[in-house]
Amino acid sequence: MAEIHFTLKKTFGNARVGCLWTPRGEIRTPAFMPVGTAATVKAMLPESVRETGADILLGNTYHLMLRPGAERVASLGGLHRFMNWQGPILTDSGGFQVMSLSAIRKIGEDGVHFQSHIDGHDEFLSPERAMDIQRLLGSDIQMVLDECIALPAGEVAVENSLARSVRWAKRSKIAFGVQAGRACFGIVQGGTVPRLRQRCAEELIAIGFDGYALGGLAVGEGQAAMFDTVDATVPALPAERPRYLMGVGKPDDIVGAVLRGIDMFDCVLPTRSGRNGQAFIRDGTLNLRNARHAESSEPLDPQCGCPACRQFTRGYLHHVVKSGEIIAAMLLTWHNLTFYQDLMNELRVMVDEERSDSWALCWKAGNSSRADE
Amino acid sequence: MAEIHFTLKKTFGNARVGCLWTPRGEIRTPAFMPVGTAATVKAMLPESVRETGADILLGNTYHLMLRPGAERVASLGGLHRFMNWQGPILTDSGGFQVMSLSAIRKIGEDGVHFQSHIDGHDEFLSPERAMDIQRLLGSDIQMVLDECIALPAGEVAVENSLARSVRWAKRSKIAFGVQAGRACFGIVQGGTVPRLRQRCAEELIAIGFDGYALGGLAVGEGQAAMFDTVDATVPALPAERPRYLMGVGKPDDIVGAVLRGIDMFDCVLPTRSGRNGQAFIRDGTLNLRNARHAESSEPLDPQCGCPACRQFTRGYLHHVVKSGEIIAAMLLTWHNLTFYQDLMNELRVMVDEERSDSWALCWKAGNSSRADE
Repeated sequence: MAEIHFTLKKTFGNARVGCLWTPRGEIRTPAFMPVGTAATVKAMLPESVRETGADILLGNTYHLMLRPGAERVASLGGLHRFMNWQGPILTDSGGFQVMSLSAIRKIGEDGVHFQSHIDGHDEFLSPERAMDIQRLLGSDIQMVLDECIALPAGEVAVENSLARSVRWAKRSKIAFGVQAGRACFGIVQGGTVPRLRQRCAEELIAIGFDGYALGGLAVGEGQAAMFDTVDATVPALPAERPRYLMGVGKPDDIVGAVLRGIDMFDCVLPTRSGRNGQAFIRDGTLNLRNARHAESSEPLDPQCGCPACRQFTRGYLHHVVKSGEIIAAMLLTWHNLTFYQDLMNELRVMVDEERSDSWALCWKAGNSSRADE
Repeated sequence: MAEIHFTLKKTFGNARVGCLWTPRGEIRTPAFMPVGTAATVKAMLPESVRETGADILLGNTYHLMLRPGAERVASLGGLHRFMNWQGPILTDSGGFQVMSLSAIRKIGEDGVHFQSHIDGHDEFLSPERAMDIQRLLGSDIQMVLDECIALPAGEVAVENSLARSVRWAKRSKIAFGVQAGRACFGIVQGGTVPRLRQRCAEELIAIGFDGYALGGLAVGEGQAAMFDTVDATVPALPAERPRYLMGVGKPDDIVGAVLRGIDMFDCVLPTRSGRNGQAFIRDGTLNLRNARHAESSEPLDPQCGCPACRQFTRGYLHHVVKSGEIIAAMLLTWHNLTFYQDLMNELRVMVDEERSDSWALCWKAGNSSRADE
């Protein structure tokens, strides 16, 4: 099987379009990866996720290791077959969820001991185990295990954590070994300190990865600090490798990050918002729970081609959201994922055609402030 | 617009196949109507319901009158457009749900005063209002309002209730008036007393309806009593009108009732079971929550063509049921509705080809006793 490789097609300012080629299909960049936490993009069939325009999904090592377990997924043919998604899958390393979800954890140089948030079972995650799990899942793009410290943290704490993350990155890379047709990405840490971000990038580049992620952002530092950190980090990364901003974000976060040279994103926002009755449309955001939609015969977003917009009115969507019907989650998730993929497509066209009149750029100005609540 | 009409194609014993023609499409009988309670068949897009083979849906007057309200549905283009189902829709009259769901109710000759189970709002349902609501919804087949008394009840109580139901049926028929392309069905009551069922049938036939339903069954009387009542009632009904057994049922209930001459059914069982992790398959029933499915790479039902069976393993379905994922409800509902439509198709073929070797007949022998829990 051939290797994964990345080709840049065009740049426009710092923004760029390209293609990450994998044996399971091409990933057009900038790319948004819907989150398929527990082997399902919540409220969606995989063929519907594909219809929204997604080239790649993200799977969560933490969730899958706890339930159903990496070995079981492997025995059932790997994650692609298990969840019936034939395109590429990127898996995180579990580090972030261990910090945010598990009740009790003890971090040492070896790895992290923690208790499952599902049944309290003792679990252990090390760089080696994280890579082992991702290999068992059959992940196309595997992320190194990093230490995610809680912010705000002092610069010394950030520096110590960064140093451990680099040591873990090295162990992760060794554990990854050589896997034909699969890639291993490093994760740049360093809080919001440009010097530390740059040092981390250099050390990871010395190890050598197929792509570089920015971790530890979008965790409450604010958009300006996040963008400043992206601006400080991107120049330290090799142009010929994909850059992935983990866990980001709102549409305006994505637009701003694309303009700063980021190629890949993932976020639960479109799916989680969909389950909560919130929709992203060209004009801003809408909360379908709002009574003002009750009698509306308008489509959710007349410029969208998803089933929610083509087949139903805002009045219907309001009704099913208020009634707690499953179809509300199904339709609004489908819509939001379509919106996100349309946004990525618009950004790719914008760069490709060097256009400054893109509707995507409206989101840069904080379109979400025009939301209805 | 042409009238609704029913044609019988073939009989085999007491079983029969036919077609109920409506301006919105043909309903092949025996027919199973998925329940679209609150303007959605729970966990399904309407196009997916159609893919299962359903010709007609059932909508609930009680739920729709409370939320979003019949007038609002009418202002948004009627129920078909509102929920994006272009095929025929049958609506019940709300009588059964008033009895089973509303907290406080007061029945008089005029109708029923009750409080909404959603917000405690005072509501009123009379034969005239029930028909008005169904007309506003744009229902293709409208049911008269009947009084559903709680069983067991003494014969005198049943007789009094029946007499009121007949008076209400007459008022309902008058309120229905003449609606081109739409039908009005009467509902035969009379508990499990053959004499009362037959008398009720005669009195309804004297009023004259487009079809006749058997109400007040499948409410705990047991299958044998239900079948005895069907046996006693069917001969009193005109052969040239469709016969509808309301709220039925399990696959073996349906098979037995088809063999006794019933043409139409509705039941929440396939959809509700789907949301609870239970699946109907050719061999019986399966509870996907059962740990014995965790490692299974088998399809749910190898003879089924639905997405759950074609695209996933029992192991995957077990995982998503255990994890409480929405896709579990989506897939198992889709499967169960497909099973029910396959069953109806099998029964139609059985009658048409006068076959006694149908797999559907296995269900007559109590196939559900082979369930895994």
